[in-house]
Amino acid sequence: MKKALISVWNKDKIIDLSKFLVKNDFEIISTGGTKKILEDNQIKVTSISEVTNFNEIMNGRVKTLHPKIFGGILADKNNESHLEDLKSIDSTIIDLVVVNLYPFEDMSKNSDLSFDKLIEYIDVGGPSMLRAAAKNFQSVIALCNPALYENFMIEYSKNSGIIDYESRKEYAKQVFLETSKYDSLIFNEFSKNNSEELSNSLNINLSKTFDLRYGENPHQISSFYTDKDISIFKQLSGKKLSYNNFFDIETSIRIVNEFDEICCCIIKHSNPCGFAIGNNLIESFDRAVSCDPVSYFGGIVGFNKKITADLAKKLIEPFLECIVCPDIDDDALEILKMKKNLRVIVYNNNYNFSNISVRSVLGGMLSQSSSTKFNEQDWQVVTESKPDKINFNALRLGWKIVKYVKSNAIVIANDKQIIGVGAGQMSRVDSVKIAIQKCKENGFDFSNAILASDAFFPFSDSIEVANKNGIKHFIQPGGSIKDKEIIKISDKLKVSMIFTNQRLFFH
Amino acid sequence: MKKALISVWNKDKIIDLSKFLVKNDFEIISTGGTKKILEDNQIKVTSISEVTNFNEIMNGRVKTLHPKIFGGILADKNNESHLEDLKSIDSTIIDLVVVNLYPFEDMSKNSDLSFDKLIEYIDVGGPSMLRAAAKNFQSVIALCNPALYENFMIEYSKNSGIIDYESRKEYAKQVFLETSKYDSLIFNEFSKNNSEELSNSLNINLSKTFDLRYGENPHQISSFYTDKDISIFKQLSGKKLSYNNFFDIETSIRIVNEFDEICCCIIKHSNPCGFAIGNNLIESFDRAVSCDPVSYFGGIVGFNKKITADLAKKLIEPFLECIVCPDIDDDALEILKMKKNLRVIVYNNNYNFSNISVRSVLGGMLSQSSSTKFNEQDWQVVTESKPDKINFNALRLGWKIVKYVKSNAIVIANDKQIIGVGAGQMSRVDSVKIAIQKCKENGFDFSNAILASDAFFPFSDSIEVANKNGIKHFIQPGGSIKDKEIIKISDKLKVSMIFTNQRLFFH
Repeated sequence: MKKALISVWNKDKIIDLSKFLVKNDFEIISTGGTKKILEDNQIKVTSISEVTNFNEIMNGRVKTLHPKIFGGILADKNNESHLEDLKSIDSTIIDLVVVNLYPFEDMSKNSDLSFDKLIEYIDVGGPSMLRAAAKNFQSVIALCNPALYENFMIEYSKNSGIIDYESRKEYAKQVFLETSKYDSLIFNEFSKNNSEELSNSLNINLSKTFDLRYGENPHQISSFYTDKDISIFKQLSGKKLSYNNFFDIETSIRIVNEFDEICCCIIKHSNPCGFAIGNNLIESFDRAVSCDPVSYFGGIVGFNKKITADLAKKLIEPFLECIVCPDIDDDALEILKMKKNLRVIVYNNNYNFSNISVRSVLGGMLSQSSSTKFNEQDWQVVTESKPDKINFNALRLGWKIVKYVKSNAIVIANDKQIIGVGAGQMSRVDSVKIAIQKCKENGFDFSNAILASDAFFPFSDSIEVANKNGIKHFIQPGGSIKDKEIIKISDKLKVSMIFTNQRLFFH
Repeated sequence: MKKALISVWNKDKIIDLSKFLVKNDFEIISTGGTKKILEDNQIKVTSISEVTNFNEIMNGRVKTLHPKIFGGILADKNNESHLEDLKSIDSTIIDLVVVNLYPFEDMSKNSDLSFDKLIEYIDVGGPSMLRAAAKNFQSVIALCNPALYENFMIEYSKNSGIIDYESRKEYAKQVFLETSKYDSLIFNEFSKNNSEELSNSLNINLSKTFDLRYGENPHQISSFYTDKDISIFKQLSGKKLSYNNFFDIETSIRIVNEFDEICCCIIKHSNPCGFAIGNNLIESFDRAVSCDPVSYFGGIVGFNKKITADLAKKLIEPFLECIVCPDIDDDALEILKMKKNLRVIVYNNNYNFSNISVRSVLGGMLSQSSSTKFNEQDWQVVTESKPDKINFNALRLGWKIVKYVKSNAIVIANDKQIIGVGAGQMSRVDSVKIAIQKCKENGFDFSNAILASDAFFPFSDSIEVANKNGIKHFIQPGGSIKDKEIIKISDKLKVSMIFTNQRLFFH
């Protein structure tokens, strides 16, 4: 008679599996809560203590950690001496180990639980049995998750009780995934502290959510991984997301959430090419398009309010890649769905983006905190000329957007929208020239225009070029050794300048 | 008398620790190889089988998995009923667990070892004991690594045998780090297959190698994490690396390794702003500088050959951020060290960059394969005009470099060097204009110049603009719906064009 050891916290599907096992002549060995629920369902169970002749001690802390159990799990079925050793301790082979672990993860999310109580949920016996069975997968089958039971039963029935090598190995693999995640979660709980330092180790354990069509380029494969509980966004319609879509969607969500005003942003090639506030979404969309009516073609469009049918009708006119919003009316969604390829993404407005981002480089990973709080309290007007209220609103708007433009980043804006963007140049003055060029191409004049720079001006040339075109207000971090000279020239040109004391340099 | 259970694969410092324990009145409990080495060093040891009255079975597969051991490790010292339970099974508290694990990681690197043999190195008893002790860290101390012994001995001596809560917790934390890494390595071994798909889960377990001064900006904290065995680069001199340095250093290494010719590249703000081949490093450096003699200021300079003193003398003249090379003469290093801030990085030329890169985004991680093999075999000349040999060399050079320029990427080059770069524009023709502008600013003419584009031309405007300036050879992936029209216009303009059939679009 085959033997199955069952000890599960998560009781899903355990009755079905157990009945299946009994029907297939398994003896079921169990204890505690699992034993009780099986017996309540008229399933015959042998108690673990009957096998070990050993009563559980210390409120169950030590139940299964016994040589008769581990001998039965670890014995190689094809090794005669192992089988003799088993006999000598009056034990026999265990064929199947069905175990899942104390719910440490769920408990860790219960903020009422103290650390001392939480550690009671560290499972010791469970991982030991699972790991032993997984190591010995050629002799023993380990099922660590209710999701695996059905496959097991199907294969068992089909192949008259034989589970093939690949399936066994797959089950074993799942065990090590489970135990590594489990201990990594515990480690993270032990590591929690209030200091600003980054943790001494980087432990990431995520599951594949889906494969992408491809990575940055068609010859690159790519997948998206998340924690199973995280659902920051949902795709309601359209083609599969591309690799770059992910970054652009994140940027669009971050940008529109910088503003309390109703607003719209358009991202193209990972840079904002349009942004505007308006009295409603339609006005803000039209205005955002006006920033660069050529480049917005194929863009990712983000909103911070619910999309209505009126807006949806406008959004299906041009070719766009994605629409990103916190909510959408049903009829608006129906309209957007008419364009089959158009991706519609709804984001969770209550989601907090992680404060830590990581990225692989040079045979390792770089991790950094990403908190960049809007720091108006640290701003200083360093020039004789001061911005008026309208200019100040424009400076605020430009500073919020320049953070999302790739360095060297220049944004020219007024108090309603951006009107020119210069990005990714190796020299700052080149970005200034490009931004000015864009303004001109798109028919903007520079009255009330401000210029925002993500890092300090190393020379005064940028200010001179901008001022020649009529720009009179500047915002930048400051911090150059030439600051004094730059303030002097600004005063000479009668322009205003704010030092924010915070650099927003991003690639 | 206190009890220490010792079972270690890595015997480093175990004699010192054991002598210390004996001197401090510990009884040492051990088995197997550990027991032998201790006894060989005249340390008195109680055998585990004396404690359990149970002989190890199945060639040691089951030695420690016994209630007397686990009762002793798991009992709460402050819980009277636990202590009574222990007494009832004729066991007592274990105070210290010194265990390290079978060297699964080292063994997995031994390619001669079959998978079936490798799994024998999955430790079952060790993690069980360590995890039990770590869970019960308020009663038991767990040392999972020889690096921890010294601290333990120091604190024990200082505080008359008392190890405080924070230290105990730290030791426990190390256990879960160790076991999660261990099982994640096993999982990865179980997951190895030959398919092109990315794995179903993403498991990263790295240790902090060092903290950076800051992240992308001074208000962001940042750390670098690696596998302890990975040493792709070494810093020989200069200031601490910055966040962006890492990416630029990787880019510089990748670029120079694309070429068999002696070459030099200069990276500024994550884009190449100079690249040239030459008869020696000095010539290639001078030529690389000539690509953009303004922007190279503050750049990262990469080489593919050993740096000599002659070159070093030239390298300390301008302000540069990093020098990156596979090797350097001692006297050259002495010269570079004269500039205290100048970072000197030597990379391991035998290192293979990982084929998979990962990056956090939208509440999860994106993983993608990064293999972009130089695919000349797939190239097609699609125009009536064909490039001659010199043009072809220039096209090859431009195509290798354009991959490292941020999209939309345009590189203008001849057969010795790049002469203009257009990067990061939202519209391709803007990148073309910028690249042409750079060529002119730096005094290059366009005879023998080629233009490389990382993705297809959506319109013919880029070709017309370039041709107006005298550029007669183009290389691009192809794949636009307008390809036919673009070929037609190219033929009309009598320019040559290669379709590479591979897009190299990177942000």
